[in-house]
Amino acid sequence: MKLHTYFRSSAAYRVRIALHLKGLTAEQIPVHLLNHGGEQLGEAFGALNPQHLLPVLEDGDLVLTQSVAIVEYLDELHPAVPLLPLDAAGRARVRSLALAIACDIHPLNNLRVLKYLEKELHITPEQKSAWYRHWVGTGLAALETRLAQDAATGAFCHGDAPTLADCCLVPQLYNARRFGCDLALYPTLERIAAACEALPAFAAARPEAQADAQ
Amino acid sequence: MKLHTYFRSSAAYRVRIALHLKGLTAEQIPVHLLNHGGEQLGEAFGALNPQHLLPVLEDGDLVLTQSVAIVEYLDELHPAVPLLPLDAAGRARVRSLALAIACDIHPLNNLRVLKYLEKELHITPEQKSAWYRHWVGTGLAALETRLAQDAATGAFCHGDAPTLADCCLVPQLYNARRFGCDLALYPTLERIAAACEALPAFAAARPEAQADAQ
Repeated sequence: MKLHTYFRSSAAYRVRIALHLKGLTAEQIPVHLLNHGGEQLGEAFGALNPQHLLPVLEDGDLVLTQSVAIVEYLDELHPAVPLLPLDAAGRARVRSLALAIACDIHPLNNLRVLKYLEKELHITPEQKSAWYRHWVGTGLAALETRLAQDAATGAFCHGDAPTLADCCLVPQLYNARRFGCDLALYPTLERIAAACEALPAFAAARPEAQADAQ
Repeated sequence: MKLHTYFRSSAAYRVRIALHLKGLTAEQIPVHLLNHGGEQLGEAFGALNPQHLLPVLEDGDLVLTQSVAIVEYLDELHPAVPLLPLDAAGRARVRSLALAIACDIHPLNNLRVLKYLEKELHITPEQKSAWYRHWVGTGLAALETRLAQDAATGAFCHGDAPTLADCCLVPQLYNARRFGCDLALYPTLERIAAACEALPAFAAARPEAQADAQ
């Protein structure tokens, strides 16, 4: 397998975690989101993914896009370390937690959106920071409420083993820290992230541990 | 089952399509996104979904959120009319197409984001419209490229029966039409949407057919 990745891409980070949790290896192909005006925007990468977004996983002739779909694919083909619970209700809960991040937090704050706000709407650095903190804060507060009040939450987002939800949570919190968000507001999320980060798979997947880290 | 819905909510529309395709009925509980400052923002709805977003599906004691997770849940419990292919590669493709809409188009243009742009960043109606068209245009162009060039595309997004991807595509195109986007740029998407809309399940799920339509 080949993973097209960038060390700081939250979405690529999710897939790296899943690969490491499952003990799978993929050749890492770095795609620099800032150099050369953004390597992901070039023709070569566009031929692989017309969305011009990371990550892309190549498995033989298959070209897979969308991090959550990729993790589900890995989970179906390599079920030994499951990243989704066995029951439908549990799977719905884990998917919902993952999508609350992957749909409702991350896409509002990724590079292309922040660029548009700066270049087209000429927002100030303060407005950009307020935008970021607003959507991250709204999303994380809702997650904190859900996870803190639900008996299905364990050492991790769902029970006592990491799932797809944790694969999404840790990169989002990493990103929030980088933008200076106050994570003390979310004690349950911080507790779960600490449990995750203590695992070798999460440690190996973190941005600083990647070959393309700068 | 009970579906908390709003006739124009794209995400609720996805779940309505899935329910109708599977021949399932759910009591529709309207949540008006504009009246009373937004009923979804109230305490009562927040107790159900701390994200304050539609849709919510109640199945007995289970409270399910995130439209894509809800459709996957319905598909697992009621597999007679499958909304995902049987093979892992096909499922990854359908999920990726669905998430390209559910993560990368819809969340940038939903009500709460457009409100923030107006109220906090004081954008003009022209800037709001340009923002909408930019993200819809970027997302739909990439989908058009993917679907037009892939042999796995059939009468519908994946083969000749509707899937989760079609459940997401039709509401997004409905929304794009409402905002005056030029869909002639996306002939494959228009062809697939027409095939979907010819089916009674899609017709029954459309906003105008809902009891809360105005």
